[in-house]
Amino acid sequence: MVSEQKIADVSFESLLRIFTIPEGPDSTLTQIEESLSKNLNQFLREHIVAEEKPLHEIEKDFSSAAIPEQPEFVSAHTEHLLDTLVSHSVHTSSPSFIGHMTSALPYFLMPLSKIMIALNQNLVKIETSKAFTPLERQVLGMLHKLIYSESEPFYNKWMHSSEHSLGAFCSGGTIANITALWVARNRALKADGDFQGVEKQGLFKAMKHYGYEGLAILVSERGHYSLKKAADLLGIGQQGLVAVKTDEYNRICPEDLKHKFAELKQQSIHPFAVIGVAGTTETGNVDPLREIAAICAEESCHFHVDAAWGGATLMSDRYRTILDGIELADSVTIDAHKQLYIPMGAGMVLFKDPQAMKSIQHHAQYILRKGSKDLGRHTLEGSRSGMAMLVYAAMHIISRPGYELLINQSIEKARYFAELIDKQSDFELVSKPELCLLTYRYVPENVKLALEMASERDRDELHDLLNQLTKFVQKKQRETGLSFVSRTQLNPIRWSGRDTIVFRVVLANPLTSTEVLSNVLDEQREIAQSATALTSALNALANKICD
Amino acid sequence: MVSEQKIADVSFESLLRIFTIPEGPDSTLTQIEESLSKNLNQFLREHIVAEEKPLHEIEKDFSSAAIPEQPEFVSAHTEHLLDTLVSHSVHTSSPSFIGHMTSALPYFLMPLSKIMIALNQNLVKIETSKAFTPLERQVLGMLHKLIYSESEPFYNKWMHSSEHSLGAFCSGGTIANITALWVARNRALKADGDFQGVEKQGLFKAMKHYGYEGLAILVSERGHYSLKKAADLLGIGQQGLVAVKTDEYNRICPEDLKHKFAELKQQSIHPFAVIGVAGTTETGNVDPLREIAAICAEESCHFHVDAAWGGATLMSDRYRTILDGIELADSVTIDAHKQLYIPMGAGMVLFKDPQAMKSIQHHAQYILRKGSKDLGRHTLEGSRSGMAMLVYAAMHIISRPGYELLINQSIEKARYFAELIDKQSDFELVSKPELCLLTYRYVPENVKLALEMASERDRDELHDLLNQLTKFVQKKQRETGLSFVSRTQLNPIRWSGRDTIVFRVVLANPLTSTEVLSNVLDEQREIAQSATALTSALNALANKICD
Repeated sequence: MVSEQKIADVSFESLLRIFTIPEGPDSTLTQIEESLSKNLNQFLREHIVAEEKPLHEIEKDFSSAAIPEQPEFVSAHTEHLLDTLVSHSVHTSSPSFIGHMTSALPYFLMPLSKIMIALNQNLVKIETSKAFTPLERQVLGMLHKLIYSESEPFYNKWMHSSEHSLGAFCSGGTIANITALWVARNRALKADGDFQGVEKQGLFKAMKHYGYEGLAILVSERGHYSLKKAADLLGIGQQGLVAVKTDEYNRICPEDLKHKFAELKQQSIHPFAVIGVAGTTETGNVDPLREIAAICAEESCHFHVDAAWGGATLMSDRYRTILDGIELADSVTIDAHKQLYIPMGAGMVLFKDPQAMKSIQHHAQYILRKGSKDLGRHTLEGSRSGMAMLVYAAMHIISRPGYELLINQSIEKARYFAELIDKQSDFELVSKPELCLLTYRYVPENVKLALEMASERDRDELHDLLNQLTKFVQKKQRETGLSFVSRTQLNPIRWSGRDTIVFRVVLANPLTSTEVLSNVLDEQREIAQSATALTSALNALANKICD
Repeated sequence: MVSEQKIADVSFESLLRIFTIPEGPDSTLTQIEESLSKNLNQFLREHIVAEEKPLHEIEKDFSSAAIPEQPEFVSAHTEHLLDTLVSHSVHTSSPSFIGHMTSALPYFLMPLSKIMIALNQNLVKIETSKAFTPLERQVLGMLHKLIYSESEPFYNKWMHSSEHSLGAFCSGGTIANITALWVARNRALKADGDFQGVEKQGLFKAMKHYGYEGLAILVSERGHYSLKKAADLLGIGQQGLVAVKTDEYNRICPEDLKHKFAELKQQSIHPFAVIGVAGTTETGNVDPLREIAAICAEESCHFHVDAAWGGATLMSDRYRTILDGIELADSVTIDAHKQLYIPMGAGMVLFKDPQAMKSIQHHAQYILRKGSKDLGRHTLEGSRSGMAMLVYAAMHIISRPGYELLINQSIEKARYFAELIDKQSDFELVSKPELCLLTYRYVPENVKLALEMASERDRDELHDLLNQLTKFVQKKQRETGLSFVSRTQLNPIRWSGRDTIVFRVVLANPLTSTEVLSNVLDEQREIAQSATALTSALNALANKICD
């Protein structure tokens, strides 16, 4: 063997050492870890969002495609990572980072995630995960119960049943949604007579067998962009993702949904799934799930709820009614890395019917044997980490009432912020928070007045200028790095569907104080007023209109 | 807001504390972390594979679907995890765990993974990842260069180009393979005249437009089970995954590949992708990639290489020729969590042509805007963690020559073990190691002799008994917990394609000594001899045949 071998400056002996567990608190690695922890904690305590450095500058540090020929010491490389990577990453846990669904993490997850990394289990099969497999099945059971509230005997029967699965743990909402639609497609095009099912014979033969001209998935105009990926991937085509109209609160219109069903069927297109959104990404609104469920029941159509973001609201006895009807869904997506405060990479899909996932079941000789409890038999992904343990731990340490408090404070803080915006003479709330997400923009007082009085053409021009201003303010604020809100484009009914660029705020971080919120508005006002070319143009036009 | 609120025993103040970064080395969390680290290190130093406890016993600890109503202290819950989870997980890093592709990790990844967890970046977009985005692009560049060896100007031009992507980082080989086949399918059924492309109009319209009766993906009989999932998901159907014959070394037969092309085309079935396997999961053999590439070039067919496991061999100047021709592939899958020694959840797919991923490109208003460098525009997954940083760190700390040593020792240890097995009078090597994977079984000396002389019927019976014996030994060895080898079923030409159950060994852990290997054989021999009913039956039949 190669134990005597040496290539370049690397000896096999030194390599063996890197696989050896250090002994005692004085080992170099233990010291490196301590100093790293200190450094990271200091970084996390700093309450700014990002050090300003343009991306093209940062790219210079990451420009070589050559794999190094010389090894580096761990200590030296750690310093290098702190300088080039950590210092130029985004403080997603900063109280003033309120632009996306990624928030602060409970600190206890840092030490506990060591268990996940050190044990390096592979959840695809029992042989490489053992106790992690029943743990993950329990976590899926917990989320299933949170949604469907089935009885204890139900979970005793199904939770650990080798031939069944209450859902799948996966890397995130996109895979969760794809899994749900995959199941729905395969059940809609199942084996029938001579036809052996879409999973075996493919979509083309399935369509011919069933006599369809196309397939459709129905979702509101506000559905997540990843659903287009899903429609593409599953062979439906993006045009098969049919957008249903929304009302002024960004919720799907049940009447239009019925209308779309009729329209599609007339064209021999089979709508096999409807997606209700429980927390749209852009405005945080929740579709009328109970009404959608009734329509789906009538049409015998799979009803999926994308609650990737909003699903955690079910933890709150006070607000879970916002998701009323979710228990009627055939499947539900929830991301634990959003409002369950788990690190990135923890998505789940739950199925009401423990038999549902049979339509995508698979096995292999060396693993996933029939009758085994291997989780990999029902997952889109293969090898997977033991991430479920962090959900398990958080459920126990935070507990349901703790999560309720977190959810409640988020929603109530968003309401507070909406009121604060409403009180400003120079801001306009564009979408009210139903959960903890809201959108708004900066509109100088005289421009507000002008917007009311303007002709359609002038209104277009005002909107155009305001859009430029919002974009400018959002970018400048991000670059300055004190705080971060995101931006998106909406088409509010109030503004006759005009393209309207807005600030988008998600208030999940419990450390975000009312002071932070005031400061965000002050900073935006200041930046807007510094954009003299745009504000002058707005003023001139507003004065012309109001004269 | 709710700062005064209290639900059950949880106060909002106590919740704020869990989001606050502890100060100083005396904080409770720092102490918990230290004690946890000690405990984990002790666990990792223990060289047994698993404590024996039947799964149904372990399940009792994970049986409640109710989310707790009472919070637990972090310290108490950590103890609980150590007792119920850690102690009943699998020691995938034990030197005697030689049954799967998951091996020991370099210890320095434990402290460094803290950076990933603590910063909690989301790689879907720049706004939530900043420096992690160029870092991931660089890692993809490094792997691309490892495979395709393009020039420096090539990487300067493409690596950080917003409209291009050299590949995608994902959770593992399954998603990587699906991504490659998705790209291949969309390019095969691209927009053409009135037809707007399969991504927009779906598979049914695509097939009608192109006049195909079916689609096919060609792969050897030894292709990974996940390819069936891919064929199902993409709407091709599992029957569209056409198995090509393999030779006695489990490598695809180019002649049969050509034959299959002809056969399919005669049936108007369009073979749009061929998959070469570089390291089959069951025997570790590598397809003749250069020959496959030539056939694909002639047929204008996408050539994908599934090198999820074997791809890391490219790090070894000594052995990279085993993968000769991989540089001709249109796309390649490599898992960093296999032979690059990275924790679970690090897959990659690389594309030769930086334009290739345009066929699956997508964007949205609030993120992934056109012209942005957001990685999410070219990934199947949405939100993703900063796992690429661990690959980056390992590349720098271990370096290319270090990886070469690791790869070389694995291959050479497997050869040593194969020789050791060959020397035993009562073991039979079933598949020789081409990389570091081999298969074998226990066959008593007199049974070996009898197998040679037996009639076909007796041979069937001997095989059947041997299969039972192998299965028994593998299970018993796993349950005993001193060491672990996996098992699978092969159909060796030597045994006229009979179903043959074998032990399967993967030798990636550099700490696995020759002594461990001898012990594994000794233990298997002992267990086999203890299975008196089976060995008596084998003996009796062998004696009858040899008489």
